[in-house]
Amino acid sequence: MKVSVVGAAGYTGGELLRLVHAHPELDLVQAVSRRHAGRPVAEVHPNLHHLGLTFHPPQELAPVDTAFLALPSGASAELEAGVAELAGTIVDLSPDFRAGASSASGDVYRTGLPELYADELPGAERISVPGCMATAAILALAPLSKAGLVAGDVVVDARTGSSGSGAEPGPSSHHAERGNAFRVYKPAGHRHEKEIAAHAKVRARMTVTAVPSVRGAQVVCHVTPPEPVERRDVLRVLQREYRDRPFVRVVARSRGVHRLPDPQFLSGTNFVDVGCAVDEDGGRIVVVAALDNLVKGAAGGGVQSLNVARGLPEDAGLEFPGLHPA
Amino acid sequence: MKVSVVGAAGYTGGELLRLVHAHPELDLVQAVSRRHAGRPVAEVHPNLHHLGLTFHPPQELAPVDTAFLALPSGASAELEAGVAELAGTIVDLSPDFRAGASSASGDVYRTGLPELYADELPGAERISVPGCMATAAILALAPLSKAGLVAGDVVVDARTGSSGSGAEPGPSSHHAERGNAFRVYKPAGHRHEKEIAAHAKVRARMTVTAVPSVRGAQVVCHVTPPEPVERRDVLRVLQREYRDRPFVRVVARSRGVHRLPDPQFLSGTNFVDVGCAVDEDGGRIVVVAALDNLVKGAAGGGVQSLNVARGLPEDAGLEFPGLHPA
Amino acid sequence: MKVSVVGAAGYTGGELLRLVHAHPELDLVQAVSRRHAGRPVAEVHPNLHHLGLTFHPPQELAPVDTAFLALPSGASAELEAGVAELAGTIVDLSPDFRAGASSASGDVYRTGLPELYADELPGAERISVPGCMATAAILALAPLSKAGLVAGDVVVDARTGSSGSGAEPGPSSHHAERGNAFRVYKPAGHRHEKEIAAHAKVRARMTVTAVPSVRGAQVVCHVTPPEPVERRDVLRVLQREYRDRPFVRVVARSRGVHRLPDPQFLSGTNFVDVGCAVDEDGGRIVVVAALDNLVKGAAGGGVQSLNVARGLPEDAGLEFPGLHPA
Amino acid sequence: MKVSVVGAAGYTGGELLRLVHAHPELDLVQAVSRRHAGRPVAEVHPNLHHLGLTFHPPQELAPVDTAFLALPSGASAELEAGVAELAGTIVDLSPDFRAGASSASGDVYRTGLPELYADELPGAERISVPGCMATAAILALAPLSKAGLVAGDVVVDARTGSSGSGAEPGPSSHHAERGNAFRVYKPAGHRHEKEIAAHAKVRARMTVTAVPSVRGAQVVCHVTPPEPVERRDVLRVLQREYRDRPFVRVVARSRGVHRLPDPQFLSGTNFVDVGCAVDEDGGRIVVVAALDNLVKGAAGGGVQSLNVARGLPEDAGLEFPGLHPA
Repeated sequence: MKVSVVGAAGYTGGELLRLVHAHPELDLVQAVSRRHAGRPVAEVHPNLHHLGLTFHPPQELAPVDTAFLALPSGASAELEAGVAELAGTIVDLSPDFRAGASSASGDVYRTGLPELYADELPGAERISVPGCMATAAILALAPLSKAGLVAGDVVVDARTGSSGSGAEPGPSSHHAERGNAFRVYKPAGHRHEKEIAAHAKVRARMTVTAVPSVRGAQVVCHVTPPEPVERRDVLRVLQREYRDRPFVRVVARSRGVHRLPDPQFLSGTNFVDVGCAVDEDGGRIVVVAALDNLVKGAAGGGVQSLNVARGLPEDAGLEFPGLHPA
Repeated sequence: MKVSVVGAAGYTGGELLRLVHAHPELDLVQAVSRRHAGRPVAEVHPNLHHLGLTFHPPQELAPVDTAFLALPSGASAELEAGVAELAGTIVDLSPDFRAGASSASGDVYRTGLPELYADELPGAERISVPGCMATAAILALAPLSKAGLVAGDVVVDARTGSSGSGAEPGPSSHHAERGNAFRVYKPAGHRHEKEIAAHAKVRARMTVTAVPSVRGAQVVCHVTPPEPVERRDVLRVLQREYRDRPFVRVVARSRGVHRLPDPQFLSGTNFVDVGCAVDEDGGRIVVVAALDNLVKGAAGGGVQSLNVARGLPEDAGLEFPGLHPA
Repeated sequence: MKVSVVGAAGYTGGELLRLVHAHPELDLVQAVSRRHAGRPVAEVHPNLHHLGLTFHPPQELAPVDTAFLALPSGASAELEAGVAELAGTIVDLSPDFRAGASSASGDVYRTGLPELYADELPGAERISVPGCMATAAILALAPLSKAGLVAGDVVVDARTGSSGSGAEPGPSSHHAERGNAFRVYKPAGHRHEKEIAAHAKVRARMTVTAVPSVRGAQVVCHVTPPEPVERRDVLRVLQREYRDRPFVRVVARSRGVHRLPDPQFLSGTNFVDVGCAVDEDGGRIVVVAALDNLVKGAAGGGVQSLNVARGLPEDAGLEFPGLHPA
Repeated sequence: MKVSVVGAAGYTGGELLRLVHAHPELDLVQAVSRRHAGRPVAEVHPNLHHLGLTFHPPQELAPVDTAFLALPSGASAELEAGVAELAGTIVDLSPDFRAGASSASGDVYRTGLPELYADELPGAERISVPGCMATAAILALAPLSKAGLVAGDVVVDARTGSSGSGAEPGPSSHHAERGNAFRVYKPAGHRHEKEIAAHAKVRARMTVTAVPSVRGAQVVCHVTPPEPVERRDVLRVLQREYRDRPFVRVVARSRGVHRLPDPQFLSGTNFVDVGCAVDEDGGRIVVVAALDNLVKGAAGGGVQSLNVARGLPEDAGLEFPGLHPA
């Protein structure tokens, strides 16, 4: 299956290049970047040095089976019609077509979240991947919501690494300001609240902190159950929901240093780890989820969804398990 | 005023040495450490190299006006009676005498939190400093509680640097495991919940994450108000409460990168920064507080309380403002 | 090919589990750990959660084609005879059999460095992998040495992440001491100097600094050439030497932010990146090499060597290219 | 003494504000910034929140006793004549007047390095502070050079935090690229080589690596002595040289984790720590020096020099000793 990556010089674009190259059924045709056209990919993504790739300009985009769009908000909507003439399938990583938004040409994008929409993705030709923190929160909360364990609003405390804001430098990503920051940059009103509501059917009150890491997103969700619960009840709900999902690991260790999901072990992987705890009086459930914002929260989620859409093994090209220590 | 520091090889002990040395009215008599007795202080605290200090063994403790106890939980209660024979005033940083606990000899310890107990500290000879995350949460929540802005339980999301668990190595503080960790090590049931209840008069449901920093504690408190509020109302409550308190800074910037309290700028200082935001519908108040766990959350809080107890300027010896960039 | 990993709870042991599991021709039989016998592997290596492995005690070691020994110095030499009765091939990652040392049973270990010893490894049944910093320095310096570009001693400035000192906690790896450290812990006399001399045929004067990272080793080698040289001459020597070596990438970019080898992009990979610069007067060559100390500097070097020894593709199981951003 | 800081929104400018405010003899008149004129200083330097300062535009510069210029290279030379009409004394932190360069008006700047030029600074009205890495290397090497311990070129391996390149964002300081970087960005030809030659009388061959820290500069200098030496000889040279210098600490511990100078303990201080080791054969001296690039390597060096120039105690306003843990 011939594939191109548009926006290949960005961080999710680079991850797509890496994942497509490692994928047994996908064949990378072009890495497209307006700004870096004609330059070696390795100047931007030094990890791909050995592949010897060069960026192509957008106007040279060749016909492919699938185009991945890894573009900033707005740019996808703008380029989409042109890409649609050259690519049978489009997988979009931007916010432009999320939450059932349709494109200019009227195409409806399916939600690239196979854990919830495994039935709707097969055969899909337009796929939109949810936001990274939204993905973590949705996968943490949807099973509880479905099981009737959520009463009232949910507090979602989200932490994000710096790669989440992209490759463009600016005052807020300047290393001397950001290197040791715990910056509550979005204490209220984050747009992911709507995605969480749409997919997990809960009202999230979200607070986002920029933390000292490059990759990784972690959400700590504080849920009030309608009546007191025990931890094993919540665990059972999570385990049942994700029993057959290859990329959700329910993490609930009683020994060792690492008992709940920690994004440090997920860099480069498509896993989302989910775990939980409960207050002694049963009055609050704490669900913790972690993932790599650039993989499961973007590029990997896109490849996984494409796998499901095209009938390939869901985990094809996504086998890297992450590192310890990290 | 002659002063000794017992437990001077630990992290809060080291901070006490630094602060006492810089204090215009305090005179350091001994740095006491059982394990390191006879060795240069600089072997443990290289920042104090130029002071040329040596650790003394506990049995050589000399009479002083004030003894600071910077000992692990349990050790303070054990040594306290002996110290009381040599020191008129005891400032304890351990949990042993918190929340109005009295010592074996029946002495009642006052709470070393001048922001709340300015009236009770003058003249005090037994002072117990609250826990670091508790201090941050109490100072964030007490004004709201007093102003009637808190309905129901409060979710307290706390983040702590590695120095909070002391100088003793172990598997959970091993750098290769801890260096990049976002480890939700205490998702529920933290003992600081009780301190918060006692001093801020709210029920806190606390979750603590060990984060990749050495110093610093930050709490993000999610408060449900009895009816919708606006941010300026909350700010006004905080500003009024702390108008005359030298170490609480109400931080509420509308411009720049750093708008809410961030512990990175508080290393070495006795400040606690407090700020807030409110959901668009007024249905949730987010209060953020940050401090240096070893200073305002321990050694500095002790010196500040001693200043108040002895009628010295409250900020004597505590002028360091922190660094930017950090 | 049936494989077991002895010392599987350590950091290089964990990497072996990861690499063996991903290897198309290797079949993991046992993860062996004395201390953690009977416990889930995921308690120690959370990245391998989904594999569902359990540690076996050493006394249950089953017969295999190949045993990897990932043990501390001394322990390998002690266990080796027993392992030799059960495993046809032994790949040792400890210092015990380096530099041509023979085992108690008289077996001579070949050096697990296919870049230098591709001719000696095929068929080998005893393989010893060089030290991580030594590997980086040897691969940086051997081509220059061979080409006659080295006059006199070489200054090797090495930087190492904390995983290099293993999984055992202690005062020097305590996060609060190590997290922001630039600790010149071995300014002179490092044992890797001998390995460098043996394999690269140069006298290295080495200084090692512990730096704030978990993984990664980087060496900056300062070479005095016998007569002034230009950068392109040195580059040509490196490129010629490594033209057909799959894991050495000669990195010499003239544009972009990342022009010389940086270990941040090598976590999890078996690559060693090598690059160079030359003083304007041609009087000093600076060769920089970087690798992941746990992979190319240990577990990956072992798998690569086994691949060569058994006639498998040299890069089997070692395809992960590393991440950007990292 | 009335003082203004020109370029007060930069990193060295912010440090000057902090140091001047804490100085018993200096009175801050204006914090000058073209870009931020009229805005609160705390928007840029949140650590100074409690001071309530506002930036002034350059055209409003008021007459003062001393103006500190904390401007980028080139800007100092441009503004200097105008400032000279308003300020009796100018302390410049840029490279513009280093190495004896004279200003447009013919004024010769003295070198703001009291450790070497204590005799030339008293009375000086034009002072230029050397570069941060140069300062570290000069103070490490000058005593050895003077004592005849240096034969031939010296290899200077320098490591620098991100604040060294200033407050202006750009691709090389973008957190996702810089956060975990060991980037050998200047392997040869650094301009500080000339400063080292001028002041320490040695030829330095320098290599600079950008490392994962915000503050701090560390140099590891590899010196070939004319004949074999022992460590105690080198230590004695350093100790004798710096016996009466308040800001140079000779660090040479034989016990503990922290035996050689580490910049982590120097953030915010004006100390430069110097230590050494020697190869077993006496054939190489390794001298390590560390400092805070923004303090001793810039703002603090300027204040210290002004103290000497005006006959104040050399350490006035510079008492902060740094933190442990850091």
